[in-house]
Amino acid sequence: MTERVVLAYSGGLDTSVAIPYLADKMGAEVIAVAVDLGQGGEDMAVIRQRALDCGAVESEVIDAKEEFAAEYCLPAVKANALYMDRYPLLSSLSRPLIVKHLVEAAKRYGGTVVSHGCTGKGNDQVRFEVGIGALAPDLKIVAPARDFAWTRDKAIALAEERGLPIDVSHKSPYSIDQNLWGRAVETGFLEDIWNAPIEDLYEYTADPAEPRDADEVVITFEAGAPVAIDGETVTPFQAVAELNRRAGAQGVGRLDMVEDRLVGIKSREVYEAPGAIALITAHQELEAVTVERDLARFKKSVDQRWAELVYDGLWFSPLKVALDAFVADTQKYVSGDIRLTLHGGRAVVTGRRSEASLYDFNLATYDTGDTFDQSLAKGFVQLWGLPSRIAAARDARLG
Amino acid sequence: MTERVVLAYSGGLDTSVAIPYLADKMGAEVIAVAVDLGQGGEDMAVIRQRALDCGAVESEVIDAKEEFAAEYCLPAVKANALYMDRYPLLSSLSRPLIVKHLVEAAKRYGGTVVSHGCTGKGNDQVRFEVGIGALAPDLKIVAPARDFAWTRDKAIALAEERGLPIDVSHKSPYSIDQNLWGRAVETGFLEDIWNAPIEDLYEYTADPAEPRDADEVVITFEAGAPVAIDGETVTPFQAVAELNRRAGAQGVGRLDMVEDRLVGIKSREVYEAPGAIALITAHQELEAVTVERDLARFKKSVDQRWAELVYDGLWFSPLKVALDAFVADTQKYVSGDIRLTLHGGRAVVTGRRSEASLYDFNLATYDTGDTFDQSLAKGFVQLWGLPSRIAAARDARLG
Amino acid sequence: MTERVVLAYSGGLDTSVAIPYLADKMGAEVIAVAVDLGQGGEDMAVIRQRALDCGAVESEVIDAKEEFAAEYCLPAVKANALYMDRYPLLSSLSRPLIVKHLVEAAKRYGGTVVSHGCTGKGNDQVRFEVGIGALAPDLKIVAPARDFAWTRDKAIALAEERGLPIDVSHKSPYSIDQNLWGRAVETGFLEDIWNAPIEDLYEYTADPAEPRDADEVVITFEAGAPVAIDGETVTPFQAVAELNRRAGAQGVGRLDMVEDRLVGIKSREVYEAPGAIALITAHQELEAVTVERDLARFKKSVDQRWAELVYDGLWFSPLKVALDAFVADTQKYVSGDIRLTLHGGRAVVTGRRSEASLYDFNLATYDTGDTFDQSLAKGFVQLWGLPSRIAAARDARLG
Amino acid sequence: MTERVVLAYSGGLDTSVAIPYLADKMGAEVIAVAVDLGQGGEDMAVIRQRALDCGAVESEVIDAKEEFAAEYCLPAVKANALYMDRYPLLSSLSRPLIVKHLVEAAKRYGGTVVSHGCTGKGNDQVRFEVGIGALAPDLKIVAPARDFAWTRDKAIALAEERGLPIDVSHKSPYSIDQNLWGRAVETGFLEDIWNAPIEDLYEYTADPAEPRDADEVVITFEAGAPVAIDGETVTPFQAVAELNRRAGAQGVGRLDMVEDRLVGIKSREVYEAPGAIALITAHQELEAVTVERDLARFKKSVDQRWAELVYDGLWFSPLKVALDAFVADTQKYVSGDIRLTLHGGRAVVTGRRSEASLYDFNLATYDTGDTFDQSLAKGFVQLWGLPSRIAAARDARLG
Repeated sequence: MTERVVLAYSGGLDTSVAIPYLADKMGAEVIAVAVDLGQGGEDMAVIRQRALDCGAVESEVIDAKEEFAAEYCLPAVKANALYMDRYPLLSSLSRPLIVKHLVEAAKRYGGTVVSHGCTGKGNDQVRFEVGIGALAPDLKIVAPARDFAWTRDKAIALAEERGLPIDVSHKSPYSIDQNLWGRAVETGFLEDIWNAPIEDLYEYTADPAEPRDADEVVITFEAGAPVAIDGETVTPFQAVAELNRRAGAQGVGRLDMVEDRLVGIKSREVYEAPGAIALITAHQELEAVTVERDLARFKKSVDQRWAELVYDGLWFSPLKVALDAFVADTQKYVSGDIRLTLHGGRAVVTGRRSEASLYDFNLATYDTGDTFDQSLAKGFVQLWGLPSRIAAARDARLG
Repeated sequence: MTERVVLAYSGGLDTSVAIPYLADKMGAEVIAVAVDLGQGGEDMAVIRQRALDCGAVESEVIDAKEEFAAEYCLPAVKANALYMDRYPLLSSLSRPLIVKHLVEAAKRYGGTVVSHGCTGKGNDQVRFEVGIGALAPDLKIVAPARDFAWTRDKAIALAEERGLPIDVSHKSPYSIDQNLWGRAVETGFLEDIWNAPIEDLYEYTADPAEPRDADEVVITFEAGAPVAIDGETVTPFQAVAELNRRAGAQGVGRLDMVEDRLVGIKSREVYEAPGAIALITAHQELEAVTVERDLARFKKSVDQRWAELVYDGLWFSPLKVALDAFVADTQKYVSGDIRLTLHGGRAVVTGRRSEASLYDFNLATYDTGDTFDQSLAKGFVQLWGLPSRIAAARDARLG
Repeated sequence: MTERVVLAYSGGLDTSVAIPYLADKMGAEVIAVAVDLGQGGEDMAVIRQRALDCGAVESEVIDAKEEFAAEYCLPAVKANALYMDRYPLLSSLSRPLIVKHLVEAAKRYGGTVVSHGCTGKGNDQVRFEVGIGALAPDLKIVAPARDFAWTRDKAIALAEERGLPIDVSHKSPYSIDQNLWGRAVETGFLEDIWNAPIEDLYEYTADPAEPRDADEVVITFEAGAPVAIDGETVTPFQAVAELNRRAGAQGVGRLDMVEDRLVGIKSREVYEAPGAIALITAHQELEAVTVERDLARFKKSVDQRWAELVYDGLWFSPLKVALDAFVADTQKYVSGDIRLTLHGGRAVVTGRRSEASLYDFNLATYDTGDTFDQSLAKGFVQLWGLPSRIAAARDARLG
Repeated sequence: MTERVVLAYSGGLDTSVAIPYLADKMGAEVIAVAVDLGQGGEDMAVIRQRALDCGAVESEVIDAKEEFAAEYCLPAVKANALYMDRYPLLSSLSRPLIVKHLVEAAKRYGGTVVSHGCTGKGNDQVRFEVGIGALAPDLKIVAPARDFAWTRDKAIALAEERGLPIDVSHKSPYSIDQNLWGRAVETGFLEDIWNAPIEDLYEYTADPAEPRDADEVVITFEAGAPVAIDGETVTPFQAVAELNRRAGAQGVGRLDMVEDRLVGIKSREVYEAPGAIALITAHQELEAVTVERDLARFKKSVDQRWAELVYDGLWFSPLKVALDAFVADTQKYVSGDIRLTLHGGRAVVTGRRSEASLYDFNLATYDTGDTFDQSLAKGFVQLWGLPSRIAAARDARLG
């Protein structure tokens, strides 16, 4: 029986050409699976048809927009997930969901091989293959760009030779990945890390330096998840999409960084993630108001590890799952409103209110109504400093 | 022999009135010690004289500006010290240095008691007293505001009764602490955490929303410390002061947050720290370029702990000292230039260059010259994911 | 109405005398509450009657043995809870449960004050009072030994004066706390930390140096909890009690250490905890077999923090609760059998078997049947070491 | 010019046969380098000659015993290095030192290739190759067992065919690695993890169950390193060797565990490390006496990471080096005497004394001389518990 290859299909040149290439090379039937994660751009039906035109025996488009927002982006909000304190993991979060749908498609269509278009020097190959190994260890994996040293030039040549319905004339100078959670751009001139990004790179965000009026937004959270914007109930997808629009219009969420890839090299990346940055900014401040100090301090190390694991392709790992249990417990009381001013590339919290607030006006105030018993402080200070004091006395004694 | 009290003197109402108050209450001679940490405001000679006019037997002003910058602010840069990811520790860093000079003054003047003006519900009492306990455990400590339930109203009454040379008519609505590293503001209406800050609170920073031209600055670091700005060699003090001026003019470094105090309550704080935020932003990116991945990941937990310890009054603790040794080792190669655009309240890195860069164009590029051997990736990915894969297979087996 | 004080009652001299003392001092009625945590010793009915004889208006004994084992000791097993890598938290675990019953008794009897016999330099005062603050913040707390500088001599004098039914003639040289989870001993001559413990200190354990035959035991765990011993189903209480007996007979579980108290001092402690040590030893090894590597590594920091929090009196804190959620998730597959040899003071694992094992004979073996693909290793090793290699080349380049 | 291969030579069958094999396969000259790490066994001169007899063009034996003890074992003592809380890293510590000498030999002899005998499923290949990559990134690496699928049977056949001077008739059932720091044993029947080890496995340790008199030893440390035993000054090598002898005679230091290998699998290992376990046990307790609490707590996470890095082959990594700086700072005051009783497989601390002790009898005692001010405790306890108390009130309020 002919082997069936389930291909993660984007509609672009590389994965389009991979259809006949894999069919020939492996003597296999190719099933193209495109997953809609809110990336916008081309119509998904057009993408679906293109795969068939390139020779796929089946072509399927899966609408995973709400699933992506609810099951992948919101956990990242709860973990304030910023790799290296900045990158909101937009590609990292999407890969495990694509993997999940590829594996399901393989079951549906009798596929025994999964294929993706990643190269051998990026992070995404790891996310695809470690994810597949966790969900369906029996599936074989083929990555033409890496395993068959497949290049863009070869792809163009094959596309022309076969007369594939792909426009190969337009070569974008940018390598792009985008979805609901943000947009990543790489390009040759940025590989010189002294070069600054140019305005032309950006699509999700307006120029923050342009004068315009500020926008004020109130985000309502329940148990760590955004549930309303300016009082209007929203789904997770709507929350992110609406904040992409409004924060993007104010130039919020541009990032330019040198990043540590899992495969051991540093790379230059430019991102724009207006909704993600607005949501995480608001969520962090709501945590400052509703999460107890020791828990907040420990959660920072959990948040960091969570982001590293997701970045490193370990979404389905036992540690990631156990950290999810910790994070879920911390979010029970992360409910309330955060008011943000979006302006000039900044998302600034200007107000917070919550039934679950641990901020206690009567303990905090220096005005009338102060209920804090200052007489307790002296003993506290003395015993708090006692270990340091004993050690300092020892050090002085020994010189 | 008459006991001598060394008083941390600011020149303001509370510590001025404390001079005759402590003299009477304790039958003691009061030595006023004011430390210049670059806080600006009144002339230090005027402050010195005021203490004498209030009855101090000795009054001294210590210029600790360069010491503060070099020995307290720069270590904070090297540790990217932001408590709760945001507060650059401006008061926290100053207290141990004031303590150091109080203790030295006590030795010089034969003081046996040290006094400070802190209340019993803030962090600064801890920083003062734990610091004194570490440096000079035999010194007694008196905090009139806390220990004698001393209030502003009592202070005003005493000032008027004694005819002290203090203007008590002007009651600022703000409680302020400021120095080279930044400025902290508390005020009654901000104790409602839904209220936004107003423009009137700020002195170190211009309104970020005002249109103006961007400013571009290149900061040169050596071993983690800024040594030149736009190619001009600077002392540590000059580095911070110059960036306060230039980043402040662009509205950089405003912070509004709910913060976990050591004494167990949450409080609302507004800060402005333009130089600190610009320096830490630049330093973080230079670390991204020059510090190896595993070290960078671990250093984040060290940086967090460092900031917590300094916030919590444990500057002189053995753990803080050992973390310093770790941080110092990490900074050996944190040398190079960072180009920042200062504009609209943002300090944005747009370029980095370093002899010590770990970014390797030839490994990173997707263009000609790529030296990364992609054939290594497959084995790496397989073994990287093996533990998760084995665990997933177990979980599936057991249901 | 007369105030009612709920007293944590042990039956010993101090808390017996506290009954009339508190009644007089506070003009209050005293309710004595004794909690049976498997401490053995005197009959609980005798203890109950003694409180009445000393003047308590109510006296209650609560059998919390199974609750203690199931809700306090087993979570400690799951967290491998050893403070400073050694102390199994026997007193630390008991205090929050006593607190819980005191608070419930206060509700039952209309108590508004809770009283305990702890001094002001130990950990237990913190565990009592922080616990009560969390469960019933409105209850007042009185600690006669600390708050009224109450001493043993005063207690004896009062007992004699009132003719209380307590034998004050026998002064044990040891200060002891004991329960199902172990036994703690302090005594004057051990305050010289160069002195070795003597055999007379121990009650739960036989001399490990005495020759005897080894004992072999198989402990069966389900989801991290012991459920059978040598194939016999046991309750949590039975599991600990049986292992106390068998491991104690082999001298297992003696500990002699210098310990960091929360109040800032170091103290010398001697413990014996045969069942606790046997259970934690077995549980750690079962985790080695069933928990994935990255999860195991992270769990060590969680385990450490869990033990510190419990030691530090923060059983009811939000961080402790969130760590519980993490730990619970990690224990899903910690099921199987561990065979221990108990002998000569050692509890040594000699075998492990589990349906949930992640040990894979076919991957591990060097004999026939090896399924590990060694060709994957080269790429793994190269990329694993790449960051270090790039950094080393940089370091060499810069000298 | 003929390429020269520097081979890590043990004298055993595999690396002996590798000499002619590599010479043929690569058309190269082979330089055999054997490093004496105190492994005992055969005379090193015999080993040196055997390499020549097998065809090596050069053969060198390097005495690195003191270097190994001082530069590799003692840092492990200072970091209390026990991977997974148990394994003292005996093989892990030796590999970077062997690497160092291989790299130096390559420079001396003009070698361009380094070769080792490790397989592709163990940790040692990583330690060798990552180490070489760090010290000499230009050296090529060949691992016949992994890269050429070299097996024992092939080795025996080649040895017989060439008439190599190796006794191939005796096939030990055990795979062994041993050096000053301990001994590792793997064997087929232990691959069933329910099987217990047998007495025949052990060489460094006597049967702990045999009756014998206890041995008492006093170890003197300076700055974390052992410098005298029972008052006699010792070199680092002598310290470990003497404790191997004395603790080994009492059966101390046997370990049987399931371990997480870096390559992603779990394996069964049996170790014996009497000196290492005795030294680390003593060192841990001396730290308990001389290291301040917060530092001790943080150091546990550093110690864990240090052990993981060394286990994972990252001895030369920047993070390992920075952790060394931290650890070094912590050891300044870890000086004093520890008295251990060695008996029945146990190394038990029974006394500690130190000029640098932080244990303060006057603060700790409950007898006359107590200087601890208990009145400070009430305030401490209240503020210590305040965050939990506020959170508990909130939780109760919200249900």
